[in-house]
Amino acid sequence: MNYQPGIFSTYLSDEEMVSIVSDDALIKYLLHFEMVLAMTQAKLGIVPQPVADEIGTILHQIQIAPADLTEGTLKNGVPVITLLSFAKQKLSTKASQYLHYGATSQDAMDTAQVLIIQDAIVVIEKRVNDLHAHLTKLGEQYGNAACMAHTRGQQAMPVTFQLKLNAWLQPLQRQLQRLSEIKRRLLSVQLGGAVGTLSVYDDKGKQLVDELAGELKLLAALPWHSQRDNFCEFTNWLAMLTGVLGKMGADVLAMSQSEIDEVMENGPEGGKSSAMPGKNNPVLSEALVALARLNATLQSQMLQSLVHVNERDATAWILEWNAIPQMIINAGASLNHALTISTNIKVNTARMAQNVEQFLKKSPDK
Amino acid sequence: MNYQPGIFSTYLSDEEMVSIVSDDALIKYLLHFEMVLAMTQAKLGIVPQPVADEIGTILHQIQIAPADLTEGTLKNGVPVITLLSFAKQKLSTKASQYLHYGATSQDAMDTAQVLIIQDAIVVIEKRVNDLHAHLTKLGEQYGNAACMAHTRGQQAMPVTFQLKLNAWLQPLQRQLQRLSEIKRRLLSVQLGGAVGTLSVYDDKGKQLVDELAGELKLLAALPWHSQRDNFCEFTNWLAMLTGVLGKMGADVLAMSQSEIDEVMENGPEGGKSSAMPGKNNPVLSEALVALARLNATLQSQMLQSLVHVNERDATAWILEWNAIPQMIINAGASLNHALTISTNIKVNTARMAQNVEQFLKKSPDK
Amino acid sequence: MNYQPGIFSTYLSDEEMVSIVSDDALIKYLLHFEMVLAMTQAKLGIVPQPVADEIGTILHQIQIAPADLTEGTLKNGVPVITLLSFAKQKLSTKASQYLHYGATSQDAMDTAQVLIIQDAIVVIEKRVNDLHAHLTKLGEQYGNAACMAHTRGQQAMPVTFQLKLNAWLQPLQRQLQRLSEIKRRLLSVQLGGAVGTLSVYDDKGKQLVDELAGELKLLAALPWHSQRDNFCEFTNWLAMLTGVLGKMGADVLAMSQSEIDEVMENGPEGGKSSAMPGKNNPVLSEALVALARLNATLQSQMLQSLVHVNERDATAWILEWNAIPQMIINAGASLNHALTISTNIKVNTARMAQNVEQFLKKSPDK
Amino acid sequence: MNYQPGIFSTYLSDEEMVSIVSDDALIKYLLHFEMVLAMTQAKLGIVPQPVADEIGTILHQIQIAPADLTEGTLKNGVPVITLLSFAKQKLSTKASQYLHYGATSQDAMDTAQVLIIQDAIVVIEKRVNDLHAHLTKLGEQYGNAACMAHTRGQQAMPVTFQLKLNAWLQPLQRQLQRLSEIKRRLLSVQLGGAVGTLSVYDDKGKQLVDELAGELKLLAALPWHSQRDNFCEFTNWLAMLTGVLGKMGADVLAMSQSEIDEVMENGPEGGKSSAMPGKNNPVLSEALVALARLNATLQSQMLQSLVHVNERDATAWILEWNAIPQMIINAGASLNHALTISTNIKVNTARMAQNVEQFLKKSPDK
Repeated sequence: MNYQPGIFSTYLSDEEMVSIVSDDALIKYLLHFEMVLAMTQAKLGIVPQPVADEIGTILHQIQIAPADLTEGTLKNGVPVITLLSFAKQKLSTKASQYLHYGATSQDAMDTAQVLIIQDAIVVIEKRVNDLHAHLTKLGEQYGNAACMAHTRGQQAMPVTFQLKLNAWLQPLQRQLQRLSEIKRRLLSVQLGGAVGTLSVYDDKGKQLVDELAGELKLLAALPWHSQRDNFCEFTNWLAMLTGVLGKMGADVLAMSQSEIDEVMENGPEGGKSSAMPGKNNPVLSEALVALARLNATLQSQMLQSLVHVNERDATAWILEWNAIPQMIINAGASLNHALTISTNIKVNTARMAQNVEQFLKKSPDK
Repeated sequence: MNYQPGIFSTYLSDEEMVSIVSDDALIKYLLHFEMVLAMTQAKLGIVPQPVADEIGTILHQIQIAPADLTEGTLKNGVPVITLLSFAKQKLSTKASQYLHYGATSQDAMDTAQVLIIQDAIVVIEKRVNDLHAHLTKLGEQYGNAACMAHTRGQQAMPVTFQLKLNAWLQPLQRQLQRLSEIKRRLLSVQLGGAVGTLSVYDDKGKQLVDELAGELKLLAALPWHSQRDNFCEFTNWLAMLTGVLGKMGADVLAMSQSEIDEVMENGPEGGKSSAMPGKNNPVLSEALVALARLNATLQSQMLQSLVHVNERDATAWILEWNAIPQMIINAGASLNHALTISTNIKVNTARMAQNVEQFLKKSPDK
Repeated sequence: MNYQPGIFSTYLSDEEMVSIVSDDALIKYLLHFEMVLAMTQAKLGIVPQPVADEIGTILHQIQIAPADLTEGTLKNGVPVITLLSFAKQKLSTKASQYLHYGATSQDAMDTAQVLIIQDAIVVIEKRVNDLHAHLTKLGEQYGNAACMAHTRGQQAMPVTFQLKLNAWLQPLQRQLQRLSEIKRRLLSVQLGGAVGTLSVYDDKGKQLVDELAGELKLLAALPWHSQRDNFCEFTNWLAMLTGVLGKMGADVLAMSQSEIDEVMENGPEGGKSSAMPGKNNPVLSEALVALARLNATLQSQMLQSLVHVNERDATAWILEWNAIPQMIINAGASLNHALTISTNIKVNTARMAQNVEQFLKKSPDK
Repeated sequence: MNYQPGIFSTYLSDEEMVSIVSDDALIKYLLHFEMVLAMTQAKLGIVPQPVADEIGTILHQIQIAPADLTEGTLKNGVPVITLLSFAKQKLSTKASQYLHYGATSQDAMDTAQVLIIQDAIVVIEKRVNDLHAHLTKLGEQYGNAACMAHTRGQQAMPVTFQLKLNAWLQPLQRQLQRLSEIKRRLLSVQLGGAVGTLSVYDDKGKQLVDELAGELKLLAALPWHSQRDNFCEFTNWLAMLTGVLGKMGADVLAMSQSEIDEVMENGPEGGKSSAMPGKNNPVLSEALVALARLNATLQSQMLQSLVHVNERDATAWILEWNAIPQMIINAGASLNHALTISTNIKVNTARMAQNVEQFLKKSPDK
């Protein structure tokens, strides 16, 4: 779950999104959680202020690389313990005792995951809005062009190209509406302590959660260690997004077939073949369809993670760690390709008209 | 996709829900759609009122059995054409011409599907509310009992039984909130005509959709033939529901293990063994876990259906026909088992206390 | 998991295969297992011969309907206990004690499942062989016709139609080879007793398994209660089969598009539309693609069942009960549709030639 | 699809296997394919020997990093074209014309994939054999220890620990048998040219495939560009392997629960908790269960790839590129953890005996 420029790194992912879900981002937010926890605890008198200041200073300075956590993660099944031990080496004995005070690994991991998701949503939402704008503009340019509708693999009736665009645009609008509803549940802090009771904090538990959430710009929430529905709701949203873009890709693939030839996804500079230099392959549309299937598959993995036994269950938790970053990356790559297509697509209205004409010739009663 | 009392018909489904998603229900709602369509069209002057009356009378009387549609469905890939031909045999020539006027098979199929889902939601919502009430009551009875929390398969710290119950209750509350949001999109009429343009109705299309929706007690909507996101959102909700109940089942399984012995899911009359007569098997909890995995799997099928090519694509549509009724049935059976458990569960607070005591003896510092 | 003539019963299943995996078949083979077990035990002196004769006579006569087992299956999570209790009502006290002697429910259920699979394989193998013969003949008729190859959605180079057929034929040949290998593991009797130790039979256990297997025309095997790999291997074979046929369906869909028009899957009498009477919809090919995706999805459910905890685990077992009959039915329906297509397909060699000609005109260097 | 030491790189993968499926390995084998192709073609007189020698020399020297191929892969949907263009910059004009002569990108990609799989199999097979040996030895040490069998979550009957081990060992034996059968199909060269007809080579095509296969130590095969069953068969084998090891993990998790306490997966130095320092978490067993679910999920993706339209279809092909390396890595990590457990597991035979004794006290008739 760490990424570097690889062969497929821009075809099936993108640097911006990979960076958002990277190991480095996870480390950054784990440290951020611990830092803000200490400062909030100081505010409430749970931790002495000088100790919180020391923790803040040290965690701000500390440099931890993913490789530093590899061995500890194998041993403990989670990187937090090793990360804390690095921090404790730099802290005074007293500050060491107050680091991660009353918290458990999962508090840090889940909150960091939510912060990563929050960053991803900012990028995704921007791309969805941009795509919506591009597709709207495409409709202004070519929406009135007559072209053939196809049902069950066969030419059906003449319609306008706008009808095709509507099938890409309208689900995006619903997706934005859904996201606004989902965020009200999803972007919640996790703080429960060892078994989700906030027991160490006595009667200050609820206030601590509220303040911590405020500092992290997240929502307050009761501990949700073994309640994973919010993540599943969000990843289904991602899978729906890639599915909706997969439909756009499939439509472009259909319309760009040589014998139909109504669009060229990426203009004349499309994909080349090693054996047939003249080809213009719709490789972005192919990726859109494939990425839709990747996320459709991964959502079943996410839903399996709801069967989270007892108060913490890594047999379920690992499923999320594996799926969430991949599904975000798949969504990001899909959006990028859809954006490229929506900008570069060459719409061949003349050929559309010709296909309609040939259809009407065969079916004079239409 | 037709059901009768079978060996597993109450263990992995239930009669009420099976009836809601049955072939008979589909036939009923297909006919209902055509009837209401004609009546609404008469109201708008699209169809002569006497013709609509005739259609209404005939479709109300007609008896069509699932087996009547089998051959036609094989031939056409959809039952609507054959169903309409049965109706036309009873209608005057003129009424025949106005039956299904301007509509396409998918309009009838999708609207019927939505009406079936609407019926299912009524039952599901009631069961969720009942379950919530039962679990709340269980908390009032046993919530204060001390018991062991377990993290990563190991005893962790003493908590109260209420903490367990919270992990079952809180996701149900979010599920109810989600459902209220989803329904605003999901329960929409489908009317688009051959290729989703409402073209036959000229400038009356929008009004017809509005009126038809009103008569069917559904929401009005632009044609969504090739936009399947609302169904995927709902089935993910179903999969989240069975997942949440699967976690409850898994917890009961864990607590009812012989060596732990803190609960008995169904009281002393639990599942028997053919080889070991003394056993009390937690067979409902096992079903809860299994049903969660069934729906988790089927949701990936549903998400694949978003890649719906062109204006109608049965390679995608069949995936829905297969998954939606099964996922509803799985959810219904899960809720029934969870209801039984929440009513019949025997909570052994003495053994819980004993397990806590033994833990504390081993871990005197806790 | 019980089936009757329903709307989609010939489009997405078929009567012969549904009957093979029906509740009635399960009841038949559960009784058969118990009967043959008693007779074999008599042969080895484990059970008195007159008792075995009585068991044989009674179980041969007894009539048990699926609905008789519904309530008991809900109670016990498995139908065997109730089925045995029906039999015991008709048996003498002594014979009752020897019925199911030393066996457990899973012995009966698993062996019955294997016997059902064995029946299914006979039908499937015949259909695969027939399909292979039809496709071979199709190659003799049309194999030399020139047509266009398409790579990545684009016309690539002229080939012959035989190349298309090879891509359908060659995987079928490998599938037959695989099946011959799989059967050597799959068609094994299950007999282990309560926890898989054959303990009741003392030193006669192994011999009993051998003899029982022989009588049932199955392979002998060590108890495999919690080892489910053979089923997963077989269902993957089914999913590969539907996948291979899904590729055939996808190719036919591509070639039968109106603008390409090289084949008509089911001759002129193909699928009709309720809105557009002139259409000829390739509804069988669509089903082939959809059925491939159904089985692809269900195989992930089967593989989840390998995580079978301890000596018996119904959270895993139910996954099999749900998936195996459905995957068999999906495979059966796929084969039927592929057989219909391979018999009825209309190959338009003139249009193929014309498409090649137009391609060559655009690409004079090819 | 490129990997570096990350946080989870030894918990959910391992360096040896990651290296085998890395981008660097892909580049190495793509170049190797082109080199050996040219040399074999020279042998058959298709390419002048000096040209083949030049190609061999240059491709042997050339250094290509994954990042060099990123942009070209986005453009063409496949890295081969860019890789070839790097090579051509170093080759004479004549040699450039003969590089990749008569081949297509998929020939290089698929053959490289097979070579990577071949390397992975060597490692996997060794680990399976080692695991089998360790578990056999474990049986020699502890196999006779009495312990409780559990069915459906409940104590059932006393057995020996060997029965548990058998459920882990026997499927591994079948897996080795299966692998020997699968390899006879899987390890096949791909050479078909642009559309799978070997057309450029005239009557030398078959001989070229045979010789090329021999040089690459692979099996000869007819072109299988659009026939992906062999890959699906292999990845199902991987998923079955992780499933079988997932069952071992689930059993260890069950037996290591605090209240049962019969084994400690990794001895006293097991996983630690950030909140509860005294815990010994079975984190490897948890990973085994999770990795089983990851591969179960990914196999459904692989099976979707069988619906490979026409002569090349990247909407399907990308599914394989994504799944195959991940499934290999998941299998490798599973094997490593199972090996660690089989070596380090602490079997508490005293506690096993005590659990049996307590069971017998409650069930005096057993």
